[in-house]
Amino acid sequence: MLVYGKNVARDLLYNDKEIKKIFLQDNFSDKDIISMIENRNIPVERLSKKQIDDLCSGVNQGIILSIPDYQYRNISILDTSDEDDIVVILDHLEDPHNLGAIIRTCEAAGIKSIIMSSDRQVQVNATVMKTSVGTLSDVNIILVSNIANTIDRLKKLGYWIIGTSLTNSVDYKSIDYSSKIALIIGNEAKGISRLVSKKCDFLVKIPMYGKTNSLNASVAAGIMIYEAIRNRK
Amino acid sequence: MLVYGKNVARDLLYNDKEIKKIFLQDNFSDKDIISMIENRNIPVERLSKKQIDDLCSGVNQGIILSIPDYQYRNISILDTSDEDDIVVILDHLEDPHNLGAIIRTCEAAGIKSIIMSSDRQVQVNATVMKTSVGTLSDVNIILVSNIANTIDRLKKLGYWIIGTSLTNSVDYKSIDYSSKIALIIGNEAKGISRLVSKKCDFLVKIPMYGKTNSLNASVAAGIMIYEAIRNRK
Repeated sequence: MLVYGKNVARDLLYNDKEIKKIFLQDNFSDKDIISMIENRNIPVERLSKKQIDDLCSGVNQGIILSIPDYQYRNISILDTSDEDDIVVILDHLEDPHNLGAIIRTCEAAGIKSIIMSSDRQVQVNATVMKTSVGTLSDVNIILVSNIANTIDRLKKLGYWIIGTSLTNSVDYKSIDYSSKIALIIGNEAKGISRLVSKKCDFLVKIPMYGKTNSLNASVAAGIMIYEAIRNRK
Repeated sequence: MLVYGKNVARDLLYNDKEIKKIFLQDNFSDKDIISMIENRNIPVERLSKKQIDDLCSGVNQGIILSIPDYQYRNISILDTSDEDDIVVILDHLEDPHNLGAIIRTCEAAGIKSIIMSSDRQVQVNATVMKTSVGTLSDVNIILVSNIANTIDRLKKLGYWIIGTSLTNSVDYKSIDYSSKIALIIGNEAKGISRLVSKKCDFLVKIPMYGKTNSLNASVAAGIMIYEAIRNRK
């Protein structure tokens, strides 16, 4: 996986993370970063601005790092989960900023696992790494091929399934979050799919008092997650 | 102000918003959008891909729209605010995604006004318009030259000032949000400035149970705002 930018570079170098190779723009001259690179045995290739920009789509500040691909976890790690475990399920999120912010919120809230689909779902990429600001390594991202089948599996493990929906739903503050639970966050535009919402034990909504009927996905996730935590303490 | 992309174009055209001029890439061929443009008397200029890309920094999909600059409001509109008013103060936010998401959350929560600084603060731009998904026209964005002086003014109007801080702060759930209040959201990296935090009547924190000590600014704002709403109902 290619990641880029000085902040990401500093974070990876400073925390001694595995870096396979570094591409530097020919005039890259940040002394601190170059000194950290020289202190480790990492292959470096100097490239022109055009070659660097062709390698990545974002603001790279003249530095691109090749790091090992993110290692997703298997759903089987939940077979031995705690009796009060909380997992977050993402039902086909599209925006890497949202995925990054949700990873950060989960880490802050002490949630260990996020389940997401292997297709039609933004995967862990450079933007996700940046927006999760160093929390990615402390949360398990579990990749599954089918969210609906995964819910059946979680139910057998004793999880109660809580989804958000505008219709046929109750106020998110009115349910009990104290058992083993899975919170589902829906797609930015479409919300939770019909099949998935049918499998939920509880459908809840965050009340809205204006004209809009939805919140940003990572904001909604934060409100739901902190409600669950609050309800338990 | 230049805004861009097909979704934004459809929204502005469909809702009959004022559009001063439209720039289309020479091969732009979306029939629905072109038909909506032709139904109104908007000047159109065809440009090459390079000219279009030079006009804006984001993914424009071959369409850029020139619209009137956002009309900020003056702080004096709060002189006659309700006795249970909530305002959100942004202490020098940098990320347009955060500003857009906070505008959206405020609209959803029924909060009418956001106060922010005229310098070292991301202003309403194309990305903010996009991430606030149509809620921008229902929230007053009040521009001030100095946040600290503005807090003094709000105190005279009877507002209680609530800021977030990691130190010398109490749990965000432990205070009373029922009076006229101003919630301050700090900068993404630095939080609330020292001077501003000294002026707060209450300093609160959202508890964290992992290694990270902060949330994404728009997620933190969402959790705080919905706590205030919950506390009042």
